[in-house]
Amino acid sequence: MSAPYTLILLRHGVSDWNERNLFTGWVDVDLIEAGRQEAVRGGELLAEAGILPDIVHTSLLRRAITTANISLDVCDRHWIPVRRSWRLNERHYGALQGLDKSATREKYGDEQFMLWRRSFDTPPPPIDPDSEFSQTGDPRYAGVEVPRTECLKDVIARMMPYWEGPIQEDLRAGHTVLVAAHGNSLRALVKHLDQISDEDIVSLNIPTGMPLVYTLGEDFMPIEPGRYLDPEAAAEAAAAVAAQGKK
Amino acid sequence: MSAPYTLILLRHGVSDWNERNLFTGWVDVDLIEAGRQEAVRGGELLAEAGILPDIVHTSLLRRAITTANISLDVCDRHWIPVRRSWRLNERHYGALQGLDKSATREKYGDEQFMLWRRSFDTPPPPIDPDSEFSQTGDPRYAGVEVPRTECLKDVIARMMPYWEGPIQEDLRAGHTVLVAAHGNSLRALVKHLDQISDEDIVSLNIPTGMPLVYTLGEDFMPIEPGRYLDPEAAAEAAAAVAAQGKK
Repeated sequence: MSAPYTLILLRHGVSDWNERNLFTGWVDVDLIEAGRQEAVRGGELLAEAGILPDIVHTSLLRRAITTANISLDVCDRHWIPVRRSWRLNERHYGALQGLDKSATREKYGDEQFMLWRRSFDTPPPPIDPDSEFSQTGDPRYAGVEVPRTECLKDVIARMMPYWEGPIQEDLRAGHTVLVAAHGNSLRALVKHLDQISDEDIVSLNIPTGMPLVYTLGEDFMPIEPGRYLDPEAAAEAAAAVAAQGKK
Repeated sequence: MSAPYTLILLRHGVSDWNERNLFTGWVDVDLIEAGRQEAVRGGELLAEAGILPDIVHTSLLRRAITTANISLDVCDRHWIPVRRSWRLNERHYGALQGLDKSATREKYGDEQFMLWRRSFDTPPPPIDPDSEFSQTGDPRYAGVEVPRTECLKDVIARMMPYWEGPIQEDLRAGHTVLVAAHGNSLRALVKHLDQISDEDIVSLNIPTGMPLVYTLGEDFMPIEPGRYLDPEAAAEAAAAVAAQGKK
C-alpha cells in the first residue's frame, strides 16, 4: 500500500482517579461510568464518520484498553488485531502518583505544581520502588526497565521507537490504525506530527474520548491538519482539561 | 521453555440468541447481562486458582471476545497480548442460522433436528449467500473462504491448523494460554485432547463461562485429565446445555 495513511488517536475517558483529582501516571485505575460513556461516544463518532480501524494499539493500562474495547465494540470492529505496548503508557508521575492534585498544589505552590505538571523536561521526584504506587515488579513490565519518574521529554524518548516501529509498520501495510492511549503519550505523538515546539507543547491539551484523525503522507507526517470527529465538543473538553487542578 | 504447559479453555457466556433459542453459528450476536456475569465469574475463578493467562486467543465473534475482555479484566490480565482467528469461530450452522430451535425441531422432526445439531459429519443445508445471516462479504473474513455450512468434522479440519500452529507456538514459549471460544470449536479441541471417538463426542457438552484447565506434556497432549475450576457448577451447566432445544 502507499500513502495516504489514516491514523486515529483516542485518549481514554474519565477514570476513577481523574474524578478523585489524584495524580495517576502508571497506576492502573479503572474508568468510571462517565468514561465508559465517552468511549461509547468515541465509537459512535468513528461509525458515523465511516473511519473504521483495521488494527488497534493500546498501552498496558486498563483505562486505555477498556476505552479501546468499548469504542471498537460500538463501531463493530471488536474483531480487529490488537497490539499493546508499555511505550504508549501515560507519563510516569513519579512520587506524585497517588497524591491529591489540589493538596500537592497547596503544599508546593503554584509554580512548582505547574512545573511538574507541564514542564517539558523537569520530572517530578522519583517514586520509592517500595511505594504501593510503584510499578517495579509488576509482571506486565517483565523485561522492561520500569521508570521511577518521567517528564514529557522522557515520554517522547520511549514512545517514538514504537511509533517508528510497530505503528508505522501497520500503516505502511495499508491499515487504518487506532492508537488508544493517554494524555501525555498522545501529546508526545502530536508534538512530533504537528512539529510543536518544546515551549508550545506545554499548553496543548488533548480531550478525552474524541477520535483525532490524521491523514499521513509517505513520510508518515500529516498532509492536512489533524481533525477531531466532533470539533465543538473537543474544544470544550480541552478547556476543561486545562482547568484541572485549579479546583 | 519445556513442558508441562498450561492451557485454559473458556466457552462464552449466554448470548442474546441463546436466550431467544435461535441457531446462531457465525451470526455475531452479543452477550446478555447473564453472560457478562458468567464472564466475571470465569475471571474470578482464574484469579482464585492463581492460573493467570499470559496470552489470549479468541474467535472473531463478539460473544467470545467480550467474554475474554471481561474475564481478563477481572483477573487483572487485561494487558496481555491478544490473538484472534476465524478458525476458533463457532460451527457455521448453514441455513439454520437465525431459525428458532423449537420451530425447527417441530418442522423437521426430532431425528433430523438431532442429526443437524449433534451429528459428527452431517452439516445442515448451506446458507444462501444473500441471506441476512450469511457472512459472505463480511470484511473480517477478507481472504477467507467463508463456509456456507459446517458439521463438527469441518470445524475440526479448520480448527486443528490453528491449534498446531499459533496456539502451540505460544505454549511452547512457556505462556499460559487462554482460548476464549465456542461450544463447537472447543468440542473440536477437547475431542483431540481427550481422544474422544466420533461417536462419543456427540454427547459431550462444554458448559459456558467455566474455565477448563489442561496440563500438557511435550507432545501437547494432556498429562492429567482436564479440570473445571468449578466442577460442581460445570456439571449442572453441562446438563442444562444438553436440555437445550427440548423446551
